[in-house]
Amino acid sequence: MIDLPRELKRRVALVEAGLARHVPSAETRPSRLHAAMRYSLEAGGKRVRPVLVLAAAELCGAAPERALPAAVAIECVHTYSLIHDDLPCLDNDDLRRGRPTAHKAFDEATALLAGDALLTHAFALLAQAHAAEAGLAHALIRELADAAGSQRLIGGQMEDVLAEEKADATAAELEFIHLNKTAAMLEASLVMGGLVAGAPASALGHLRTTGRELGLAFQIVDDVLDATADSATLGKTAGKDARAGKTTYVRLHGIEASQRMAAEHTRSALSALAQVPGDRDFLTALIEALVHRAA
Amino acid sequence: MIDLPRELKRRVALVEAGLARHVPSAETRPSRLHAAMRYSLEAGGKRVRPVLVLAAAELCGAAPERALPAAVAIECVHTYSLIHDDLPCLDNDDLRRGRPTAHKAFDEATALLAGDALLTHAFALLAQAHAAEAGLAHALIRELADAAGSQRLIGGQMEDVLAEEKADATAAELEFIHLNKTAAMLEASLVMGGLVAGAPASALGHLRTTGRELGLAFQIVDDVLDATADSATLGKTAGKDARAGKTTYVRLHGIEASQRMAAEHTRSALSALAQVPGDRDFLTALIEALVHRAA
Repeated sequence: MIDLPRELKRRVALVEAGLARHVPSAETRPSRLHAAMRYSLEAGGKRVRPVLVLAAAELCGAAPERALPAAVAIECVHTYSLIHDDLPCLDNDDLRRGRPTAHKAFDEATALLAGDALLTHAFALLAQAHAAEAGLAHALIRELADAAGSQRLIGGQMEDVLAEEKADATAAELEFIHLNKTAAMLEASLVMGGLVAGAPASALGHLRTTGRELGLAFQIVDDVLDATADSATLGKTAGKDARAGKTTYVRLHGIEASQRMAAEHTRSALSALAQVPGDRDFLTALIEALVHRAA
Repeated sequence: MIDLPRELKRRVALVEAGLARHVPSAETRPSRLHAAMRYSLEAGGKRVRPVLVLAAAELCGAAPERALPAAVAIECVHTYSLIHDDLPCLDNDDLRRGRPTAHKAFDEATALLAGDALLTHAFALLAQAHAAEAGLAHALIRELADAAGSQRLIGGQMEDVLAEEKADATAAELEFIHLNKTAAMLEASLVMGGLVAGAPASALGHLRTTGRELGLAFQIVDDVLDATADSATLGKTAGKDARAGKTTYVRLHGIEASQRMAAEHTRSALSALAQVPGDRDFLTALIEALVHRAA
């Protein structure tokens, strides 16, 4: 068995160093904009997506350092999506991870522009860090732009907004939301790691399936935790979904069936991963920890 | 002398066809999102930036059709910046070109996401349209991401917001805003056209200077028109800047000096352009029309 906390900590430290290095400093003109970008990037979180990038690159034979620009780019896109999601016209959240959201710490105009800037920076960074490898830069940018685009990440966000308005989404609509709002970026994380390592198309296909199934399992577990855990364990208000009348897997299928579905998607993720040659110990342990988490 | 209206019309028609072809249809799921993207793209305007892309490509020896994905990508980024600028937390404009702005025609959440989606689509389109030419895709994406990034387009927008708050920007601050909010995308338009045509570095450098000087001239002319033209000629409310207490070239330097500065930047633009070999008639006529416009 590997020491997951230790292995995870090492990679998170690498990601933090990458963020410090590959994003303009808070003093860069205009400093208010760059301070807001860094404020949100530095709010922490589990760094799940960038760690998946590094882990997939390592699995396919590259040093994690080589995947750092791709990992930072993914985290920039994830952070932009959180900043825009938190804005008053979407979720109107004042707090994220216990800290004021960007539009509370700064203001709405700055938060909007900081999100725009982080999204744009992801593409600039990939183009610049891989300037001498145009083929790789091109493949990474194409993967990220598709995953973050109007038919995936943003499309999932749009359908989430529409589902909340009508308050009775179908199972198919819920799956569309999760496939695109959650799974798309997990897929892209693993695939981009594979691309950096020059993995063959077959391995990239298995990594994509792993990411999609992990994304679905992760989201169902989220729904189950919201319905079953208490707020203290969760570190945030439990039972929020039910009170908001939000359509969730638990509401559509019940707790037991949801747990079975999460286990099913986890098995599919691990069996796809098992087809990628290499040392899979860290990624396997990470996926199991993500779906068996208590909070 | 060339027939500018006819030559312009032909290229605008090509741009319109490119937009129809290279952006997902309004029926694409989620249709509300794609309908909002197309609503704003189809609001028209003069298509200055995409026409500059085609014109630079032609000047450097490529067929305009070949530059169409780059032209559409530039227009997607320009349109995203207008949608986000119009939002209540920035300029809070209800009308643009006589039609309701995106957040009025749809709602704020949809407008925010449609802007995000257009920005992302620009990069996806460049990666996809030039999939077989990774070097070109890479160069185009790098140019666009830099021009649209936190130190150029978005940086200029941020400083514009900050200048409005303090209401007494310096000449240096005003130049930063115009260089980045206006000139950056005009530079990128001409350079991307040159890149598509495989122009040498020297020509790309002259095209960049042409774009920067044109951008500065264009913006000063805008300020002068706001202070001197009547609303009927302008097609929008004249004197808005002065009433809003906004810092402009006219407020800082007076009308006559502003006119002299615009003429100076125009001369610089045309003399840089004169160093690019090829048939410059259309681009020269277009630049002169843009800075000698009455509205």
